Amino acid sequence: MEPERKVILYISMSLDGYIAGINDSLEFLSMVDEEGQDYGYHDFVDTTDSVIIGRKTFDKVLTMGFEYPHTDKDVYIISRTSRPDKGSFKYYTGSLKELILKLKDQRGKDIYCDGGAQIAHQMLKEDLIDELVISVIPIILGQGVSLFQSGLPELKLKLLRSKQYEKGLVQLHYTRERGSS
Amino acid sequence: MEPERKVILYISMSLDGYIAGINDSLEFLSMVDEEGQDYGYHDFVDTTDSVIIGRKTFDKVLTMGFEYPHTDKDVYIISRTSRPDKGSFKYYTGSLKELILKLKDQRGKDIYCDGGAQIAHQMLKEDLIDELVISVIPIILGQGVSLFQSGLPELKLKLLRSKQYEKGLVQLHYTRERGSS
Repeated sequence: MEPERKVILYISMSLDGYIAGINDSLEFLSMVDEEGQDYGYHDFVDTTDSVIIGRKTFDKVLTMGFEYPHTDKDVYIISRTSRPDKGSFKYYTGSLKELILKLKDQRGKDIYCDGGAQIAHQMLKEDLIDELVISVIPIILGQGVSLFQSGLPELKLKLLRSKQYEKGLVQLHYTRERGSS
Repeated sequence: MEPERKVILYISMSLDGYIAGINDSLEFLSMVDEEGQDYGYHDFVDTTDSVIIGRKTFDKVLTMGFEYPHTDKDVYIISRTSRPDKGSFKYYTGSLKELILKLKDQRGKDIYCDGGAQIAHQMLKEDLIDELVISVIPIILGQGVSLFQSGLPELKLKLLRSKQYEKGLVQLHYTRERGSS
């Protein structure tokens, strides 16, 4: 039997848990910029063939003047409003749980949860995340967009590995530990 | 010249930044209990000779049926209300900044900031913490007492080291990076 496809939340946060500063600023991420160092991002992305992203975060990427990458993957943009698909980019207004169940029922690579905070919260709340790869940036931001908003259920994790990098980023890789005490 | 005494915040938190769960529960810490493993705590404590702790946290230790340890150190219990000293335990109602400046003006070992969240917040807000040793417990608690409350200034850090332990605890050791861009 093939192993089940996993849903992986892959994201960076400050030590105090912010994935963006005030006005959605991502400027703090630049403190770990290093030529030729992508902190394993491309290797990770290669293990996935589907992406789940919130509509606001998707639009944010576009307003920053970037094309949304991952054109080779099935991208599900989670939205309240139905919109026509754009190639491999599909707007999805249904239940997240049903989407995950449907994807897991199909063969494929892992599923990349690309944020933002609202989608991460919803996914964690429904216990739909199988692994978390959290890159902790060496800064306290003090304010901004919290990755872990209050109101989540208790979720026990198992550390798979942690890795420390030259610029002070520590990448924590956890798997969700379900059903154990 | 002797190096200046450092103020070190040494504390455990869940991945989502809680130092205690609902009703101040510390039960989640038991998931990393391992015989003979103190995660470097005693070695750390030996590098200090003074402790700063909030009055509520101090009282909490006592109501849990423990004696407050560190009887060999100068313990400053930060309180709004003046109370008579108890041996080496001194109630302190003045300015935290003045206390730190006074201690740094004296010779001695490092200064251990033992929490709780309110004192940690005040110390971080006034940029009085020189190093942070944060033990990340492999769990999302979802609610409780947040270590990093909002409203802190941006504080750049430098990673000194990270260490991963068998039970999934990752200890992050940062120094405050002042005055660099």
